[in-house]
Amino acid sequence: MPKAAMKLYYCETLNPRKACAAARFLKADVEFVRVDLANGEQRTAKFLALNPNGKVPVLQDDAGTLWEANAIMCRLSDSVASDFWPHDHRQIDVLRWLSWDASHFTQHGATLWFETLIKPLFGGEPDGAVIENAKTSFRLHARVLDDHLAENSVAVGATLTVADFALAAALPYATSAEIPLAEFRHIQAWYGRLEELDAWRNPFPA
Amino acid sequence: MPKAAMKLYYCETLNPRKACAAARFLKADVEFVRVDLANGEQRTAKFLALNPNGKVPVLQDDAGTLWEANAIMCRLSDSVASDFWPHDHRQIDVLRWLSWDASHFTQHGATLWFETLIKPLFGGEPDGAVIENAKTSFRLHARVLDDHLAENSVAVGATLTVADFALAAALPYATSAEIPLAEFRHIQAWYGRLEELDAWRNPFPA
Ligand SMILES: N[C@@H](CCC(=O)N[C@@H](CS)C(=O)NCC(=O)O)C(=O)O
Ligand SMILES: N[C@@H](CCC(=O)N[C@@H](CS)C(=O)NCC(=O)O)C(=O)O
Repeated sequence: MPKAAMKLYYCETLNPRKACAAARFLKADVEFVRVDLANGEQRTAKFLALNPNGKVPVLQDDAGTLWEANAIMCRLSDSVASDFWPHDHRQIDVLRWLSWDASHFTQHGATLWFETLIKPLFGGEPDGAVIENAKTSFRLHARVLDDHLAENSVAVGATLTVADFALAAALPYATSAEIPLAEFRHIQAWYGRLEELDAWRNPFPA
Repeated sequence: MPKAAMKLYYCETLNPRKACAAARFLKADVEFVRVDLANGEQRTAKFLALNPNGKVPVLQDDAGTLWEANAIMCRLSDSVASDFWPHDHRQIDVLRWLSWDASHFTQHGATLWFETLIKPLFGGEPDGAVIENAKTSFRLHARVLDDHLAENSVAVGATLTVADFALAAALPYATSAEIPLAEFRHIQAWYGRLEELDAWRNPFPA
């Protein structure tokens, strides 16, 4: 088998999930390399040389390494000349949603994911006040997205972009992480359509 | 005086600051419109029609409104065909730093800004535990940026980009907000160069 053009370092967690889903969705030429977060592989010198932040995902090619899941999704899109990361008039609007998502929507969703699912894995106690705050903030922003999706089938334009995958990042964990998704029916309908994609449902190597 | 092509709604706070600085730096054709956050103007129906999130900055032109400061900086750059938001091989790297900044670096800096400067304005008590956590997280990420700036004069390539303005967003408040900047000499040197720009030092209308 010929060597893949790029390596994608991942683990089965929230941020790498969207990068892996994008790689599959785009049929990009990547080899998946699992990083054992539970055993601290991300803090080894070898991994820190790939990403000094000690986090996954990381994309590696002959030119070097790239971290940050959103940047990786865009790079993968460019690698196959897709408009999943558009280079026309839609680009600014995609940036709007990527930025809004990172600052607000998925930040609150990821807080719920971390408090309810990840902390307990490592013997921590979920913090009730943090959870309540995150739910309130999530609802406030979900209202804005829900209104937007009442009139749009996807985040930007008429086809899927990196913005949709970014906005959806925490939603696979909605039920288990107490993310109050059920109150927002347009988000739910949009998310239901994403879940029909095999790349989104099954982003990780078996 | 002819009508400006765009209106930039702002207040003298952290996020609008970088959008205003970018408008000045790029000499973009904008009219500055002040929004009175202290008196709740952002929650009026008139303002919510511009941005359902009730936040500044917002950019308005004939095509509609754009929110999220980072997207606004890119849009302003496109409006004058600058490579402050580059469209060549640097773009993915700029996305890396924008994303890293929103998720980590300025998030922790902005938490310190909010706890120490904004909360007290509204009669709130700074939360000591939140402040200590934010300082620890800021330091962890500042180490990564400092190492990067030891070998690079700007975030990406050889000239200023939106990534530099995003990374610098909380730093005007470093001293007053207890942001531990003094420990990171390469960040300090880079930030010192930014401060030489009149657009960065004085982003707001007089
Ligand atoms: N801003 C980064 C965040 C990446 C991140 O937080 N990754 C987590 C997994 S979801 C991780 O690697 N954590 C390991 C650690 O912090 O030790 C991105 O979007 O890629
Ligand atoms: N993610 C937004 C955040 C904007 C934001 O938080 N703006 C603050 C001022 S720094 C605001 O308008 N706050 C008013 C409020 O929340 O009521 C951006 O980057 O533009």
